Amino acid sequence: MSDPLNALPGKARRQDDPPDSPRSAGYSEPLRVRLADRDNPLPLDCGRELWPVDVEYEVFGELSPSRDNAILVLHALSGDAHVAGWYKDAEALGRPWYSKRPGWWDTMVGPGKAFDTSRYCVICSNVLGSCYGTTGPLSIDPRTGKPYGLKFPVVTVGDWVRLQERLVTHLGIQKLLAVAGGSIGGQQAIEWGLAFPDRLKCSIVLAASPVLSAQGLAFNAVARHAIRTDPNFRDGLYNGGATPDKGLGVARMIGHITYLSEVSMSRKFGRRLRNRHEPGFTFDVDFEVESYLIHQARSFGERFDANSYLYMTKAMDYYDASAWGDGDLARAAQRAKCAWLVASFSSDWLYPPAQCREWVAALCANRLPVTYVNIESSYGHDAFLLEVDTLSRLIPDFLRGVATR
Amino acid sequence: MSDPLNALPGKARRQDDPPDSPRSAGYSEPLRVRLADRDNPLPLDCGRELWPVDVEYEVFGELSPSRDNAILVLHALSGDAHVAGWYKDAEALGRPWYSKRPGWWDTMVGPGKAFDTSRYCVICSNVLGSCYGTTGPLSIDPRTGKPYGLKFPVVTVGDWVRLQERLVTHLGIQKLLAVAGGSIGGQQAIEWGLAFPDRLKCSIVLAASPVLSAQGLAFNAVARHAIRTDPNFRDGLYNGGATPDKGLGVARMIGHITYLSEVSMSRKFGRRLRNRHEPGFTFDVDFEVESYLIHQARSFGERFDANSYLYMTKAMDYYDASAWGDGDLARAAQRAKCAWLVASFSSDWLYPPAQCREWVAALCANRLPVTYVNIESSYGHDAFLLEVDTLSRLIPDFLRGVATR
Repeated sequence: MSDPLNALPGKARRQDDPPDSPRSAGYSEPLRVRLADRDNPLPLDCGRELWPVDVEYEVFGELSPSRDNAILVLHALSGDAHVAGWYKDAEALGRPWYSKRPGWWDTMVGPGKAFDTSRYCVICSNVLGSCYGTTGPLSIDPRTGKPYGLKFPVVTVGDWVRLQERLVTHLGIQKLLAVAGGSIGGQQAIEWGLAFPDRLKCSIVLAASPVLSAQGLAFNAVARHAIRTDPNFRDGLYNGGATPDKGLGVARMIGHITYLSEVSMSRKFGRRLRNRHEPGFTFDVDFEVESYLIHQARSFGERFDANSYLYMTKAMDYYDASAWGDGDLARAAQRAKCAWLVASFSSDWLYPPAQCREWVAALCANRLPVTYVNIESSYGHDAFLLEVDTLSRLIPDFLRGVATR
Repeated sequence: MSDPLNALPGKARRQDDPPDSPRSAGYSEPLRVRLADRDNPLPLDCGRELWPVDVEYEVFGELSPSRDNAILVLHALSGDAHVAGWYKDAEALGRPWYSKRPGWWDTMVGPGKAFDTSRYCVICSNVLGSCYGTTGPLSIDPRTGKPYGLKFPVVTVGDWVRLQERLVTHLGIQKLLAVAGGSIGGQQAIEWGLAFPDRLKCSIVLAASPVLSAQGLAFNAVARHAIRTDPNFRDGLYNGGATPDKGLGVARMIGHITYLSEVSMSRKFGRRLRNRHEPGFTFDVDFEVESYLIHQARSFGERFDANSYLYMTKAMDYYDASAWGDGDLARAAQRAKCAWLVASFSSDWLYPPAQCREWVAALCANRLPVTYVNIESSYGHDAFLLEVDTLSRLIPDFLRGVATR
């Protein structure tokens, strides 16, 4: 396991692998494909049908001739298809924040890494309703010729996975070797095992429970309330005008608190004052933790869309794996056929270990093959991004075991 | 201990005692006194001197001829001097929310209750910077003839306690029998024992630690950010115009999440849908917990002032009992002379038990008389308001022991 004190996020984070490093996934570029149109719309859980639907995705490593080495990585709330490697020209792609850093899970995806791109073909696609290339509220509504805004349908984790299945089919893959994700990406990994039990050999579920807690719903409710009451929000039709960055910033600050643990916040910031001396006796920023959060709020507005934040959190709220069993989780798990690796993180309070274990118990109740580990970590929910050493010891062996079965 | 399942907040809350009930503190009225003027300004921790300063307070029970039975109750963030009993005409006082309910700690203050007003004289005053009668940002700045707004000085728990000491002196009380409070009221109770060690016989500290954690600072930072970025805030000079209710509402929602525990939220709301059927697939309120929080947000704007929220949370941020020992808590506690009752609550994550125990340890290190109990409760931070049965068994015996010493 990584030494938590030695790898505080933002402090002693591991070095990025530059694109020419042997362990880097190298340069990547976003691909796009239309997976639903008027003749073949995407049916949604809300009852509507959506078209056109374009999906942005990236691919790392080579698909084997028998197409049996594909791993679909599933991103979380603010993620995208750029899971690893570097963009040659991030500015030109309109994503300047990626000019100085690699994809969001670059520590885990690359040659010789946990998801070894010299062995596996790793695919990652942006989810429906997000703002990174896949159709979402920023897209043009063909009925009006204008951006959807809040007229975009409320989408679900089920919808996301159904669209991902179209992508996998489009890529000619009958059966995925694995799906893998953390947080709401982990919920997609659960959903894959239930919605398409014959289309994957294993599912890797990190820091995700079969359902979000009341407290999680509460945080999302505040985040959405902050966005929707921002006067710039204008019912989601802010395109071309001032954007609701303040509401989105508050939402992001709340998110950040839930991603860290009390211990990691205390270690990272404690009560240190920004000027290292006395409190200012003004309402300017006094404490480092304030400064950090306000910085996060500001930078998020430059890279995320407020409408998408509403849609993503709503999907997170609605997800309930037990729906496949009419509210009975063990019955839902009956559908599953694949092997499972489930990891929770001891200090995660957004998807706490006890709630993650509910899914493990449901799998056990059905005598399904599940490997479960509760990883001791002080990083809170973010641990699924930061406990790279532990995950890099767990995942390759698990994948090899599944691949040879 | 009360049965947590049987007394869920807002669900099976105990019945209010009407004003004519033998256990009610009866009718009360707010009193006001000027405790600082040009000739006798209040010195503040920020270095400024403040005048005039008026204090609103209420008194319950009779002061004994020897003036040795006074208990000063210290309120928390959104509290006021109306700790118990009823207003005869809450509307006329401009506090309509008190027309249908008694003071905020009526369950604990009254004849035969934990703070027994047939035996003790209970005093409660509104803190400096609040919006309930004591001088604060809504008051007129004598230098400009206009409300202070953000020109009001940033006040501290130390300033609050220094002003309370003036009130106690004004009432002719040399030595308080007790001070008592929960949350930031508990921090005032700590401060009383350090700032005026000879002026009290005991201090009752509930759900309060000697310092707020980094996570607590973070929540306050988001709350203030939400208020200050509300366009109606206008640098705090919103008097007479639209008020920053949306920002204040977000702040209140965040507060509420931190006051409840994950367990109590889960028991109280779980994932119940408001319409008890299907999710709506819109951005209207789906879950009961959302509905609850949005209701709290709206009603808070009717009774609290956004500027005061900034000042109260800043005082909460700044408080650090160890300042009396130059950063060494045990050294700070050397100053203390009184007896202490400290209670933490098992599910409180705003002032968690382990952090409350730091104060107990500091007292123990100085061989000071301290009774400490960690009360098993699912109510989270709100437990100090709700675990009435347990507290009503602890506090009267403790007070009797102190009174006869």
